[in-house]
Amino acid sequence: MAKVCSIICGAPCSELDTNLIEGLVIAADRGLDYALTAGIAPDIAVGDFDSAESPVPSGVECIRVSPIKDDTDTVLAANTAIERGCNELRFFCALGGRLDHTFANIQMLYDLIGRGICGKLYGNGECVYLLHDDAAEIPRYDGYLSVFSYGESALVSESGVKYPLDCHRLTNSFPLGVSNEITAQTARITAHEGTLLIMEVRE
Amino acid sequence: MAKVCSIICGAPCSELDTNLIEGLVIAADRGLDYALTAGIAPDIAVGDFDSAESPVPSGVECIRVSPIKDDTDTVLAANTAIERGCNELRFFCALGGRLDHTFANIQMLYDLIGRGICGKLYGNGECVYLLHDDAAEIPRYDGYLSVFSYGESALVSESGVKYPLDCHRLTNSFPLGVSNEITAQTARITAHEGTLLIMEVRE
Repeated sequence: MAKVCSIICGAPCSELDTNLIEGLVIAADRGLDYALTAGIAPDIAVGDFDSAESPVPSGVECIRVSPIKDDTDTVLAANTAIERGCNELRFFCALGGRLDHTFANIQMLYDLIGRGICGKLYGNGECVYLLHDDAAEIPRYDGYLSVFSYGESALVSESGVKYPLDCHRLTNSFPLGVSNEITAQTARITAHEGTLLIMEVRE
Repeated sequence: MAKVCSIICGAPCSELDTNLIEGLVIAADRGLDYALTAGIAPDIAVGDFDSAESPVPSGVECIRVSPIKDDTDTVLAANTAIERGCNELRFFCALGGRLDHTFANIQMLYDLIGRGICGKLYGNGECVYLLHDDAAEIPRYDGYLSVFSYGESALVSESGVKYPLDCHRLTNSFPLGVSNEITAQTARITAHEGTLLIMEVRE
């Protein structure tokens, strides 16, 4: 059964979609400012707090670490969530900031999927996740749906989209699956083999 | 010998650093607007022109393609540059827009490196490129230097930086090389094995 954790990260964040926030709530460093501004009291605040402006409110569990560390604040929050038994992690304000942070977050998703944990990054009107030997049903929305091979190659089928694919081998040197659009009520993406990186871009 | 092509792409672009623009100049779709606004007349304009607002000026070679195509406008521009004998491709306004476009551009770099072509993406104060069985010397700047394994793993050394690495095996599931800083006059990054994704973020 899914046990959800909502992790509020530190990328520049104009809109925090509070509808999707449920379960255990963890603020990672500057995410604490975003949470408090949105009227959300997190259960836990983690990080080196080199960029949060708000003090940690009383009643919020605080996990403070040294700024000299190998893990990013987001990875620390993810590990905390997993230690507390969560297996579905939603990362808000996790996209749209520095590209190196975004890329580090995507690499973290690959670590999570290897540990059997489902993770999704949200931010900037975009939603990013990985699909490994699995399928996803995605309800139609206005915008673009892009599917990439995360590793060297992946075998993919896409239906319910403008440019369908049937057991096509995608590689990480040719982004054939970029900028598709959902045309049916629901799109179905299947990773028959390998790991797919899915990007939903809403407009 | 390096034969440079400067390709102006279509990501939202506040500053087009004209100092770096040299060689053959190609505008890809909306990049035509950015080029003309910056007072640059490209040699060639390519794309489906579904998003450029400016008409192609007379004297500019125009390569127009159908919007229903497998290649992105940026890949079309890259292939045009290679056909004209260029082997060092600089892509401006290639970062900072939709994340799926950014990711597609990075995957294109991996294709280019396999063809012996050096490519760098610029935009949003960031510069992104791949390093394969090679080393790079990077002069100091204010900001962050991040090094990722592009494939499953890569063997890397980093010197002249705050957190040096000596023949360390990076993987694409743990971004140990994120948010480093150059401390010496010049940093040296070596990919002993595998492919590194380098991100320079200037502040």
